[in-house]
Amino acid sequence: MRFDHETLPQRVRFASGEAAAHVAAEVAALRGRRVMVIAGRSARTVAREIAAGLPVAHWHDRDGDVVMHVPVPVAERARAAAAEHDVDVVVAVGGGSTTGLAKAVALTSGIPVVAVPTTYAGSEATAVWGLTEDGRKTTGTDPRVLPRAVVYDAALTLHLPVALSVVSGLNALAHCVDSLWAPRTDPINQALAAEAVRALRTGLPSIVKEPEGLEGREQTLFGAYLSAAAFASSGSGLHHKICHVLGGMFDLPHAQTHAVVLPHVLAFNAPHAPEAERRLASALGAPTATAGLALLYDELDAPRALRGLGMPEDGIDAAADAVVAAAPPGNPRAVTRPAITGLLRAAWEGVRP
Amino acid sequence: MRFDHETLPQRVRFASGEAAAHVAAEVAALRGRRVMVIAGRSARTVAREIAAGLPVAHWHDRDGDVVMHVPVPVAERARAAAAEHDVDVVVAVGGGSTTGLAKAVALTSGIPVVAVPTTYAGSEATAVWGLTEDGRKTTGTDPRVLPRAVVYDAALTLHLPVALSVVSGLNALAHCVDSLWAPRTDPINQALAAEAVRALRTGLPSIVKEPEGLEGREQTLFGAYLSAAAFASSGSGLHHKICHVLGGMFDLPHAQTHAVVLPHVLAFNAPHAPEAERRLASALGAPTATAGLALLYDELDAPRALRGLGMPEDGIDAAADAVVAAAPPGNPRAVTRPAITGLLRAAWEGVRP
Repeated sequence: MRFDHETLPQRVRFASGEAAAHVAAEVAALRGRRVMVIAGRSARTVAREIAAGLPVAHWHDRDGDVVMHVPVPVAERARAAAAEHDVDVVVAVGGGSTTGLAKAVALTSGIPVVAVPTTYAGSEATAVWGLTEDGRKTTGTDPRVLPRAVVYDAALTLHLPVALSVVSGLNALAHCVDSLWAPRTDPINQALAAEAVRALRTGLPSIVKEPEGLEGREQTLFGAYLSAAAFASSGSGLHHKICHVLGGMFDLPHAQTHAVVLPHVLAFNAPHAPEAERRLASALGAPTATAGLALLYDELDAPRALRGLGMPEDGIDAAADAVVAAAPPGNPRAVTRPAITGLLRAAWEGVRP
Repeated sequence: MRFDHETLPQRVRFASGEAAAHVAAEVAALRGRRVMVIAGRSARTVAREIAAGLPVAHWHDRDGDVVMHVPVPVAERARAAAAEHDVDVVVAVGGGSTTGLAKAVALTSGIPVVAVPTTYAGSEATAVWGLTEDGRKTTGTDPRVLPRAVVYDAALTLHLPVALSVVSGLNALAHCVDSLWAPRTDPINQALAAEAVRALRTGLPSIVKEPEGLEGREQTLFGAYLSAAAFASSGSGLHHKICHVLGGMFDLPHAQTHAVVLPHVLAFNAPHAPEAERRLASALGAPTATAGLALLYDELDAPRALRGLGMPEDGIDAAADAVVAAAPPGNPRAVTRPAITGLLRAAWEGVRP
C-alpha cells in the first residue's frame, strides 16, 4: 500500500427542501454582505427563490450569462461584474456550467463560492476549473475554486427529466469506475467510489420508477457528490480520456457520451483489474461488474450507441489514434490501436460488450 | 437523507520505509526552517533517524517531555520551548500522547504540525485536542490543531508488540463501530468506517500471524486513519461515553478498555440499528456483526474482562449511574440503568455477549 491523498476543506449540507435556509446560513458564515447569484436559464426561477433573503448585489442570470464549457469572454464578463459590484460571496445555483462559471470568478478573485447543484454533475466537489477559448478547453486545479460550502437539496433536482437524470447519473457512475484505475487512485478514493456506486445503483432505478419521489433523487445526488470527490482525487483514467477525445472531435453531448462509453471501457479493463472488478461487483450487487452494469443499463433504458449521439462512423479511426496518444499511464490493460478501434466501433454501433 | 459534513484539509502520505523522505518533503512544503521534533521515550531513536536531515531547532524528546493525556504543565513547557526556539514547524513522531502534545502547541501558536504516527491511535487525523489538569480532561475541536500532513510508514509500527497492536487496533475498530450511531453520524462517515473495518479485519489477524510482516501493519494503519477520520466527524457514541466514564473513574488502560467494552456495546445496540448491523456484518464478512466481532476476537485472543484491567467489582453501580447520565442523544436503544448495569457486569466478568 502506497499513496498520497489530499483531503480538501469543504462543508456539505444535505437536506431536501432546505436550500434557502442553508444557503443563508453559509453566506452568513462567510460574512457575505454583497452576494452575486449565478444561475443559468433553467435554474433562474429557483435561484431567485433560494436567494430572495440574501443581500444580493448582483444577479448574474440573464440569457447568455451562463454558457456551457465556460468560454473565456463569458468568464471575463462574470469577473467584471463581480468586481464592479464589489461582490464578497458568489452563490451558484445550477449544473456544471454554472458551478464552472463561479469557479472562473473565484480563480482570479479568490471570492468564496457557495454551490447549490441542480444536476448530478459533481463539479461542486472538486477544485478543478475549466475554460474554453477558440474551441479549446483548458483545465487546471486550484484550491481557491473549490466551493467553500455545497448545499444539496434533492428537491431542486426533481425538475430534471428522467432521461437527463439517467445520463447525468451514469456520468457520475463513470467517475466512480474510472477512479478505480486512474493514475492517482488510492484506497480512500476507492472506498468513496464504491459507496457512490451503491448510492447510484439504488437511486437511478428509483428515479426511473418514481421521477417525482425524493428518495431516488437523494441517493443519486449523494452518489454524484462522492463520485466527484473520488474522481477529482484520482485523476482521469482511460474512460475520461476517450470521452474527452470524442467530445472534442465530434462535439457530442457530455453526459450521454459518458453513459454510452462506460460499459465498453469497463469490459475492456475489468479482466485486468481484479480489485476494481471485485469492488464494483460488490457495490452493484452482481456476480461481475460487467453483468451488474448491463443489468443497470437495462433497468434504466440507458443510451447505447455513439452513432445515436451524432458521431460519424468514419471518425472512429481518427478517434482511436487520438485515444492511444492520450492513454493514461498505468491503465490496467495495454491501450493498443486495434483494441481501442474495436472498443470505439462497438460503442458506435451500440453492441453490448 | 439529511446531514452536515465537513471535510478537513490534510495531506496523507502513506508508504512503508519512506518516513524520512516524506517528512522532509512536507517540512519543505511548509517552508520549515526551525523545526521542533517531539518524541516520547519509545520513539526517540526512530525520531532522531527520521529527522536527521531536517533543520531542527529543538529536540523535545527528553524523559518527561511527553506524558499521557497531555497534562497542562507538560503542554506549557512544550509551548515555551517552541517560542524560545522560534519554531516554525512541529514534527511529532509517536503515538496519541505525542500527537496530542504537538496539538497543544498548535492550539495556542498556530504552528503547523507534521505527524508521524507509530501506533494505531488515530489522533493525527482529527482536529480534536485534549489537555488534563488536576486529573480532569478537557477536550475541544480547533482547525489549527489538525496536522497539515500525516506521514504514515508502517515500518515504524513493527516495534509495537502484538498484544499492544491488537488492543490499539481494536480501539480503532471501536471508533468505526461507534461512529455508525453517534450523534453526527452521516453516510460519508459510515462509508469511511465500513472501509476501515474491512482494513482492520484483514490487518489485525495478519499482525498476529506474522508480527514482522508489513502487510498486516499497513492495513491496520490505514484502517486506523480512516476510523479516526470517521469518528472525529461523527462524535462520540455510547461506546466512547462508557469508556470515558470507566477510564476516568478507575484509571484503566485506554486501548484495552475500549477493546473489552466494544463487543458488549455492539451486542446492546445492534438489534436496534439494522443499517449499522448490515454494514458491519458485510465489512466483517460474517452473517451478523456480533458474530463477526466474536470471531475476530477469537482470532486475536483479545482481552475480554474489565476485572482483568483492574476495575473493582463494586465500581459497577457508580459507573452505571455515570454512563446513564452521560448517554449520547439518539442512541439507537434506550440507555437505562438496569441495561447498562447488565452490560458493565458482563464486560467486567468477561462473559461473551
